[in-house]
Amino acid sequence: MALFTRPPAFEDITRAAERIRSHATITPLLESTALNEIAKGRVLLKAETLQRTGSFKFRGAFNRMSQIPPDKRSGGVVAYSSGNHAQGVAAAAAILGIPAAIVMPKDAPAIKVANTRSYGAEVVLYDRFHESREEIGKALTEERGATLIRPYDDAGIIAGQGTCGLEIAAQAETMNAKLDALLVCCGGGGLTAGCALAMETLSQETEVFTAEPEGFDDTKQSLLSGRITANTGPQKSICDALLAPQPGNLTFAVNKARVKRGLSVSDAEVKNAMRFAFRTLKLVVEPGGAVCLAAILAGRYDSAGRTVALTLSGGNVDPELYRAVLSGGSKGER
Amino acid sequence: MALFTRPPAFEDITRAAERIRSHATITPLLESTALNEIAKGRVLLKAETLQRTGSFKFRGAFNRMSQIPPDKRSGGVVAYSSGNHAQGVAAAAAILGIPAAIVMPKDAPAIKVANTRSYGAEVVLYDRFHESREEIGKALTEERGATLIRPYDDAGIIAGQGTCGLEIAAQAETMNAKLDALLVCCGGGGLTAGCALAMETLSQETEVFTAEPEGFDDTKQSLLSGRITANTGPQKSICDALLAPQPGNLTFAVNKARVKRGLSVSDAEVKNAMRFAFRTLKLVVEPGGAVCLAAILAGRYDSAGRTVALTLSGGNVDPELYRAVLSGGSKGER
Repeated sequence: MALFTRPPAFEDITRAAERIRSHATITPLLESTALNEIAKGRVLLKAETLQRTGSFKFRGAFNRMSQIPPDKRSGGVVAYSSGNHAQGVAAAAAILGIPAAIVMPKDAPAIKVANTRSYGAEVVLYDRFHESREEIGKALTEERGATLIRPYDDAGIIAGQGTCGLEIAAQAETMNAKLDALLVCCGGGGLTAGCALAMETLSQETEVFTAEPEGFDDTKQSLLSGRITANTGPQKSICDALLAPQPGNLTFAVNKARVKRGLSVSDAEVKNAMRFAFRTLKLVVEPGGAVCLAAILAGRYDSAGRTVALTLSGGNVDPELYRAVLSGGSKGER
Repeated sequence: MALFTRPPAFEDITRAAERIRSHATITPLLESTALNEIAKGRVLLKAETLQRTGSFKFRGAFNRMSQIPPDKRSGGVVAYSSGNHAQGVAAAAAILGIPAAIVMPKDAPAIKVANTRSYGAEVVLYDRFHESREEIGKALTEERGATLIRPYDDAGIIAGQGTCGLEIAAQAETMNAKLDALLVCCGGGGLTAGCALAMETLSQETEVFTAEPEGFDDTKQSLLSGRITANTGPQKSICDALLAPQPGNLTFAVNKARVKRGLSVSDAEVKNAMRFAFRTLKLVVEPGGAVCLAAILAGRYDSAGRTVALTLSGGNVDPELYRAVLSGGSKGER
């Protein structure tokens, strides 16, 4: 287990890329002239919405789970997740032939619960306000001799997510784009840590920023204070994928030294970005996947004259919520 | 003018690719494991939804308009279109510095009218049931000394759309996919003709099929009868982009000898495909852009054991219609 409790090195990311190659999608790095005009710069969109299971989470889950020793596989895996990690673990488990039990909140988006089940995983629902997912997960793990697959605070997960960064660096080069900055959607910080490690080796001049929902900007606050700082107070956010209470120990150890600054966006800005993605980019983006785009459109990051890559980290949004988001907004939006 | 009234040759398509290179997007050829499982084969999706202006139409418009002689440019261009060609012409006109007047039906999707105006074009609305767009277009053309940019029956347009086929052939090769078939969304037949010409040279073993809405399957009927056959009777279709009354003379001359067979799909099948694209592919696809995907999902083309590419030809759908489509469908859809 010590193997996964220290931050990964760059070589762990390239090894992860080898492991996931036959199963994960090399998602496109897209560019929109309409967005470039608005941003007054060059914006490259890493469409992890098009990744297997609809989010980047498959990368880390498959990389981590493919390293479970053969004699441990029959015990299965347990994960707790509001949805995207659940789907990533479930899909990886199906490919690897490992039984999977996923602990999900009862109020997780229905599409995420249904998709997790559709991959053949057992879903254990719990009450987010009165039960502890950690306790439920721990009991399941001990009972079954299963391996717990953490959503972000695990070197195998971080290395897997880092393959997204490897691709961004390579694709940007193909597009003759010298990246001034990379904006990463941030919950527990796994995607950020993996991408920051990749950039550190492949594109040192690129500054890495996180984007988070207001009220759940624990990484932004932790970067400001220099130590792990939890979200305070009862906040709500439309970004169900980014509600981690505080940065992970491993992820923050990586991000503290490598992330320039944290950005945060309001729900209204996220919804506006989702509508922009619909109308102009023709991409379905879930709330948590739209925070970086929201940061650009709302001017939280000044993209003028710069070349910026950002992650659209997932697209698993319930049709009901999507319809409600589309019905908002002014007529003047393009 | 005779230049554009004969079918293009393969070399016209490669020249078109050179012309549009700095302005058009090389759209990705996407693959979804979930779709492959359903199709029991390999399905590659050419996402022209991600093309500049949200549909493939920019390719042909820019290629054709960049060949207008300098002394003719001040007279501007005139086009009539329900929307996607309008946006393609308007965007190309803005780049080339040519004034554009677009004749659009009053009941065209609002997003297409708004976007056409946003590129700086003049929009002339007409009543589809009581006025003739051809007459309005002709009057404008004569009055202004403008060049009429036909939506499909023009060799410059066909060659431009053919660049989509060039990309499909090259991208399929990169993905180690030997294409058994290519399914193309078909209105007047310009995209089909261009792609069929590209495949004829680059991938001779690939059979080309058209997909059309039921009631507007004039290309299917024309292929069956061996001569240009118009749609009959007052039909309705959700596919506003594919309502051409009959195949073009040029396009049918090309397609007659090169298209294997026509496929047709119902509105219900189109809506189902749009929901599948939302839920599983995370792509916003307009009705007319979803007919090939609908043909696969509805089993109109037997993809079992085959490798098939298809076009998702556009994504310009009004939010109101999209919301209505999302609200339909059964809970069991994934």
